[in-house]
Amino acid sequence: MLNIGIIGYGGMGSYHHQQLIKEEDQVSVTGAFDIKVDRLDLARRNGIKTYHSLDELLRDDTIDAVLIATPNDSHKELAIKAMEQGKHVVCEKPAMMSVKELDEVLDVSKETGKTFMVHQNRRWDSDFLMIRDLYNQKQVGDLFQIETRVHGANGIPGDWRHMKVHGGGMLLDWGVHLLDQILFMVNSPIKEVSCDLSYVLGDEVDDGFIAYLTFENGVRALVEVGTTNFIKLPRWYVKGLEGTGVIYDWDLSNKLVKQTGAIDHHNLVPIKAGQGLTKTMAPPSEEAVTELDFPPVAADFPNFYANFYDVVVNHQEPVVKNEEVRRVLALIETLFDEAGQID
Amino acid sequence: MLNIGIIGYGGMGSYHHQQLIKEEDQVSVTGAFDIKVDRLDLARRNGIKTYHSLDELLRDDTIDAVLIATPNDSHKELAIKAMEQGKHVVCEKPAMMSVKELDEVLDVSKETGKTFMVHQNRRWDSDFLMIRDLYNQKQVGDLFQIETRVHGANGIPGDWRHMKVHGGGMLLDWGVHLLDQILFMVNSPIKEVSCDLSYVLGDEVDDGFIAYLTFENGVRALVEVGTTNFIKLPRWYVKGLEGTGVIYDWDLSNKLVKQTGAIDHHNLVPIKAGQGLTKTMAPPSEEAVTELDFPPVAADFPNFYANFYDVVVNHQEPVVKNEEVRRVLALIETLFDEAGQID
Repeated sequence: MLNIGIIGYGGMGSYHHQQLIKEEDQVSVTGAFDIKVDRLDLARRNGIKTYHSLDELLRDDTIDAVLIATPNDSHKELAIKAMEQGKHVVCEKPAMMSVKELDEVLDVSKETGKTFMVHQNRRWDSDFLMIRDLYNQKQVGDLFQIETRVHGANGIPGDWRHMKVHGGGMLLDWGVHLLDQILFMVNSPIKEVSCDLSYVLGDEVDDGFIAYLTFENGVRALVEVGTTNFIKLPRWYVKGLEGTGVIYDWDLSNKLVKQTGAIDHHNLVPIKAGQGLTKTMAPPSEEAVTELDFPPVAADFPNFYANFYDVVVNHQEPVVKNEEVRRVLALIETLFDEAGQID
Repeated sequence: MLNIGIIGYGGMGSYHHQQLIKEEDQVSVTGAFDIKVDRLDLARRNGIKTYHSLDELLRDDTIDAVLIATPNDSHKELAIKAMEQGKHVVCEKPAMMSVKELDEVLDVSKETGKTFMVHQNRRWDSDFLMIRDLYNQKQVGDLFQIETRVHGANGIPGDWRHMKVHGGGMLLDWGVHLLDQILFMVNSPIKEVSCDLSYVLGDEVDDGFIAYLTFENGVRALVEVGTTNFIKLPRWYVKGLEGTGVIYDWDLSNKLVKQTGAIDHHNLVPIKAGQGLTKTMAPPSEEAVTELDFPPVAADFPNFYANFYDVVVNHQEPVVKNEEVRRVLALIETLFDEAGQID
């Protein structure tokens, strides 16, 4: 069993404790430190030990590893300090503010022999696993266009996520998830990117973005995060050579249409569309398509914390590899550059 | 009354005759020429005079104007010939294969004093007029993101639209409509464009595209045509500073949500989304938003053919100005360039 101390018992830190870290994964939360007294009180009420200082937590020999769930700009220093004091590290995303920071941390991981692993938890999201299965199993042929969107209308919730110095903004906050999912799924180098950052809310950080990625294998990905969307577009919209799939929302409501017959171009019945007629945009005949179900899927890789245990104890391969984390961070830097953001 | 002779009595030519040209607009179809005998037979059955040759039609002094509804690569020669023989011209879209061709035609229009007007009929589409009204009347504040999509699953219907030499492909065929609508609505110079053309069907012309336009006034437009989409995304998706609007399909089904109260960031209830919790992507509280109706709208500009009559006879301003047509063609050329299409 690995004993974990949580650094930063805020929304995410306490969520790890209450929901994500399970004893059957051989990982157990035993303590926490937070700079806020009310969060420490909560941790205590939740039955774990609390510390008066970070150093006190790091000096505790019963703690094997720490979870870092603090604002993004503090991850580097905390991770380095923890590893130097002999702790393995699970780090919330985005792992670091830059590739450069990550490289410093990875150097320390190498020197100390301590595991550093980033909690890219959305690799286990069911909606993503359904799309990934469609990508791998090709139920509607090779997917060549993948649109992944997360839409909300609440702007940026009011805390450090508003602030550039803390690594706020939607490209870092949500973009890191969507980009990590895409790169984890599409096993091909990126050929071209474009990106547009949104600043309509007047924050100093982006309140959303649209990015468009072209992979060398031909796949295109449109990746969008919006916090000013009072109506949502579907969470996933994907096109395969033989059909189209949609997952509408977190409830996993979905639709999957497969072309099962030839399109009879010469007998298409044109439809009235606005002021014109169109055959091109007429629906295909009913015989030409079939509606399928998205197959139920489970991850074909272990749970995050079960894997963390195996990485630390049994030297197995991590599901979230640091070179993958590095690639996503490098892509985010490229997207910021491409969008012309001024540092 | 202006008498019109139709050159090319195919799908569009006959549709003009049967549906679009109305006597109350003081325009009347009196004749037609087509190179196909069966189309001439149809014209005759539809009660108009048919000609044995183009020259015969152009020599007929009872014909005031021609409608050119032939493949795109023939428009230039036909328009020039008709104007030189004293006829005004209505030309189907895309008007020409290039800005250069259009400029030649406009020179002849100037020399001969004959009207040349392009049938950008989708400026009168109800879905477009509803969005244009939202843009102008600001029912959900200034629109800053406009997504316009036309999705079908039939590929490119089987005729000259497959062929590059005839000016086929979706950027020219449907793109010209969507881009014309956007430029007609958003009165601002374009600052930046990006474009990706789709060639998944193996045609020599594009079977769809995604373009992203940034205007100097800050508006962004995502313009997409797809012919491999077995499930449609909404026809229009627009974001204003105070809400979001969607028109789903040609049937004008729609949704309009306006922010009517402040978003209370500190009391947002996080939702479970996949493996995580999110406040950012939680729905706004019910008190913060109101669902409105898209107001019914009619065009605040005359019908195409009534306007054509007034342009020819009363020297009024055309609704479809040739400089606007030129701007759209120039944009299409830029998009082809940007997408790296090889001529």
